Amino acid sequence: MPISTNNPSRKSWLDVPENSDFPIQNIPFGVFLTKDDVITIGTRIGNYAIDLGALQQLNYFEGIELTDDMFMQDTLNDFISDGKKTWRLVRNRIGDIFDSENPLLRDNDKHKDIIIFNIEDVEMQLPVLIGDYTDFYSSKEHATNVGKMFRDPENALLPNWLHIPVGYHGRSSTIVPSGIPVHRPMGQTLPNGETEPVFGSSRLVDFELETAFITTDANVMGENIPVGEAEDYIFGMVLLNDWSARDMQKWEYVPLGPFLAKNFATSISPWIVTMDALEPFRVKGPNQEPKPLPYLQQKGKNAFDIHLEVYIGTENSKEPNLVSKSNFKYMYWSMAQQLAHHTSNGCRVNSGDMMGSGTISGPTPDSFGSMLELTWGGKNPIKLNDGTERKFINDNDTVIMKGYCKNSSVRIGFGEVSSKLLPPFNRK
Amino acid sequence: MPISTNNPSRKSWLDVPENSDFPIQNIPFGVFLTKDDVITIGTRIGNYAIDLGALQQLNYFEGIELTDDMFMQDTLNDFISDGKKTWRLVRNRIGDIFDSENPLLRDNDKHKDIIIFNIEDVEMQLPVLIGDYTDFYSSKEHATNVGKMFRDPENALLPNWLHIPVGYHGRSSTIVPSGIPVHRPMGQTLPNGETEPVFGSSRLVDFELETAFITTDANVMGENIPVGEAEDYIFGMVLLNDWSARDMQKWEYVPLGPFLAKNFATSISPWIVTMDALEPFRVKGPNQEPKPLPYLQQKGKNAFDIHLEVYIGTENSKEPNLVSKSNFKYMYWSMAQQLAHHTSNGCRVNSGDMMGSGTISGPTPDSFGSMLELTWGGKNPIKLNDGTERKFINDNDTVIMKGYCKNSSVRIGFGEVSSKLLPPFNRK
Repeated sequence: MPISTNNPSRKSWLDVPENSDFPIQNIPFGVFLTKDDVITIGTRIGNYAIDLGALQQLNYFEGIELTDDMFMQDTLNDFISDGKKTWRLVRNRIGDIFDSENPLLRDNDKHKDIIIFNIEDVEMQLPVLIGDYTDFYSSKEHATNVGKMFRDPENALLPNWLHIPVGYHGRSSTIVPSGIPVHRPMGQTLPNGETEPVFGSSRLVDFELETAFITTDANVMGENIPVGEAEDYIFGMVLLNDWSARDMQKWEYVPLGPFLAKNFATSISPWIVTMDALEPFRVKGPNQEPKPLPYLQQKGKNAFDIHLEVYIGTENSKEPNLVSKSNFKYMYWSMAQQLAHHTSNGCRVNSGDMMGSGTISGPTPDSFGSMLELTWGGKNPIKLNDGTERKFINDNDTVIMKGYCKNSSVRIGFGEVSSKLLPPFNRK
Repeated sequence: MPISTNNPSRKSWLDVPENSDFPIQNIPFGVFLTKDDVITIGTRIGNYAIDLGALQQLNYFEGIELTDDMFMQDTLNDFISDGKKTWRLVRNRIGDIFDSENPLLRDNDKHKDIIIFNIEDVEMQLPVLIGDYTDFYSSKEHATNVGKMFRDPENALLPNWLHIPVGYHGRSSTIVPSGIPVHRPMGQTLPNGETEPVFGSSRLVDFELETAFITTDANVMGENIPVGEAEDYIFGMVLLNDWSARDMQKWEYVPLGPFLAKNFATSISPWIVTMDALEPFRVKGPNQEPKPLPYLQQKGKNAFDIHLEVYIGTENSKEPNLVSKSNFKYMYWSMAQQLAHHTSNGCRVNSGDMMGSGTISGPTPDSFGSMLELTWGGKNPIKLNDGTERKFINDNDTVIMKGYCKNSSVRIGFGEVSSKLLPPFNRK
């Protein structure tokens, strides 16, 4: 089945601003709430949100086997469950409907009124009900930086790191879409030089620049997904800010890993960009030495060239400050390797499960994916354009992450995940 | 509102065998499938499964505010979401309906035919859709045993352990009810004395004796649940076998905690015993020294006297072998402290979330809650009644955990969580 939607010469009859993340070659999937309080599954072209529930009701998906209410739902889980063939048929059909040469909807003002919204008039929701959320730790640069700071600079990587896409389970209940503010957490910390912990608001709140992929039903319990098939079970990707409270993390994480230092909030971008849309941006990943065990060996281009940027907006800054430029292609372990490893023990993966990359740090200091690394543990504060400086994130700062792929003919982007850090919630 | 159902002198018109876990004073909640392929919410008295959906349709819950299909669902999440007042009204009503003095249903054979099933004729399901699963590590004896074996015998407890109910996130997608067999997992391990890992089936599969509690919607994101209110958000408890692959765990768990060594399977008992039913069995918990920080300080009896037993059945053993006798009252951190800590950073807790206790080891070697501890890392194998011995769990062994409370007038039990360990699944 060809991915007709990726044809770079295609134009839409909907206006797409220059440098938009959402040309007709993207066709991401999301869920939004309209001003009339209707929740629906949708896509986006340019600055228009398109109601796929309405498109379906008006028969624009005729000929594609879909349950009657496939897009009149408040999550994408059922659609994702239908599998890659259906994803591609629907995405190609949407491309056809909005092709500048196709008069069917273009010339039907009544239908357009029902189907198309200005993006400012809708409120983006979480795109999926996330059953299980896993977070990996797959950037060698990040793991090395953390190892240098907190463990042994001479042996920064732990012995298992080059053999295992190390990961752990996160909390689904606190994953929120872009735009939802997050409260600075309270928690236990051990002040430097003390032996007794204290309870109070975290002093070291940080972001972590990540992406995440969303899976379809991959297997039954006990069964593994071979690395060569794993990509078939990945629906698409989002940007992810893995909010972290460094002082709480330091005190709690031995021996069972991060818990309250992470689970107060995780923010994601609301549009899932499909793997089909990202296909033109495949590149070779880093060389893996030592060679992984056979169940993790993968051939061909298994990385994606996705530019990533982090900005901090402050109350007095006119423009958000660019603080990091990284790229998804730096990831040591691929998404396919992560999913093959995750299921190598028979762990069941369901539609709507989300798997984070781990902090994506590049090789240079301006490409690190967290304040911890950018300021090297607070030693080198970052100067901002309002005259202030930051070691970590202050109350009322807004952290914005952007991501996009670009070649000479097309730009495919994620939009952004933007969230403001509020002071602690009033305690009960 | 009185808990009338706990009156120990009450009898049911349904036959309850001596020493049954399910007298009329219990009234647990679960979900079962009938022979006619109907899934319903139910309770159990003696060896009878009672269809609460049918009871509701036949108007037995008249006067209690419930949505029309409250019990005609395949999970208890909505019922649990209705809160403690509703739980108590419904449980008291069920007690009244089955009271030996009440002729209403007792003398209506037509209704009894619709409502009551032999327990052998139903298939128990998972009682809740578990959004997030957290596992704590709250037995001081267990943490000390593990610390002695793997770290420093002189400083077995890590510095944070006496200050924090240490916990981590588990995997919801692989939680299964009693009766579902589990496959021995495949995974990476580092053979003793080697520097290169290998991939193969785990050689050290273990059980962990735990209980778990199930929550209702507790808070909005950012809000905490004070320790004094936390019990109001706990619906009830189950038994839990936290299957563990010790060799995989050892290689993978630093620095982010256990992952594939645990997430291949977690087995639970299918009936949720309510906190109301457990109320008569409150006891004082262990003395906490040093005194916890104020947000974790709790008054009164915050532990429960629940006897716990683990049995191993083998292919050739006529009777399962009792290998451990422990008790929930040994837990250092209470469920209220766990929930208060979990939400102290504003982490949202939903209806149907599950929180495991961590392995419940008692003070004596015959009360340890895992083979790791019972055989002290495999050094002291356990002799079984079929003439074989075990360091860990063999293929085709069945691990059975039982739990009950007992005083001079009543026994309230959990039934069991029983699961067979099968050889590894054929790999793809």
